[in-house]
Amino acid sequence: MPKAQAKTHGSFPAPPMNERPPHRAARDDFRWDGVEMRPYKEDARALHKAITRQVLFSDPAMAGELRYFEVAPGGFSTLERHQHMHAVLILRGRGQCLVGDEVKTLETRDLVTVPPMTWHQFRATRDEPLGFLCMVDAQRDKPQLPEAEDVARLRRNPAVAAFLDGKPSA
Amino acid sequence: MPKAQAKTHGSFPAPPMNERPPHRAARDDFRWDGVEMRPYKEDARALHKAITRQVLFSDPAMAGELRYFEVAPGGFSTLERHQHMHAVLILRGRGQCLVGDEVKTLETRDLVTVPPMTWHQFRATRDEPLGFLCMVDAQRDKPQLPEAEDVARLRRNPAVAAFLDGKPSA
Repeated sequence: MPKAQAKTHGSFPAPPMNERPPHRAARDDFRWDGVEMRPYKEDARALHKAITRQVLFSDPAMAGELRYFEVAPGGFSTLERHQHMHAVLILRGRGQCLVGDEVKTLETRDLVTVPPMTWHQFRATRDEPLGFLCMVDAQRDKPQLPEAEDVARLRRNPAVAAFLDGKPSA
Repeated sequence: MPKAQAKTHGSFPAPPMNERPPHRAARDDFRWDGVEMRPYKEDARALHKAITRQVLFSDPAMAGELRYFEVAPGGFSTLERHQHMHAVLILRGRGQCLVGDEVKTLETRDLVTVPPMTWHQFRATRDEPLGFLCMVDAQRDKPQLPEAEDVARLRRNPAVAAFLDGKPSA
């Protein structure tokens, strides 16, 4: 795949090095100096709820990017899959995730690896936000959304169905 | 530079995907299930004190790696520079860092960018550990240690000299 095509819709040009100070202070409530809070998706077909994105590190000289996503209480990320991997560290709160056909309960600082082409979704608990760091390759493919048959296949597992319905069994 | 040479001394083979669970729980005291705590350096010439390393994410399918370093109270990382960049998020405690000729006070969740070929060092305060995440390219060059003339040049700046002596002015 040509590089231009491989570049995700989810990225944007980083400021030139000489415009980015080496130190950017943390603000209250998991915001950062010089980091814009962005809407999560441009793809209107993607089903998600109450999630924001902040790109903490993205630089032409680095092969990886580090983003911070925050799901509000009761919210969830898009159910999707893609060739590129996700390396996730829970930075704030608690929740659950679906990776493949496994539903896992998440506590602060837990690590989640999303292998290539694996359906995944993150959900916050009802009482607090779920914030997580996500490392990805800067050059990466665009996420795929599930077809009805994909969702039907996932729902055959009762624990997965409960997760997708926002009624986690755990 | 051939790939074999570019690969850092600081990395090690990741377990095959099928041996790594998608979810690894955080333990107390900034440890993680399935993550080995390693000595910081094999290079005996490197001057550092009381720092450990845990590789949280390293996979042949990912271009970046995410590591967690923890400097004990009063400890410091190696003063070094290299072509590859560091993207740092303070995960625990407080401290100071030197990046180029700037000394910065660090609070939890602050972000630090270390540009290519820039001298840098991290120091914990005397009363608590300083823990930080560091994203790097998986393929990266080996750090360079300063010669006496490099240190002399850095010390011309009084704030940098105070930092290097472990007597931060801030």
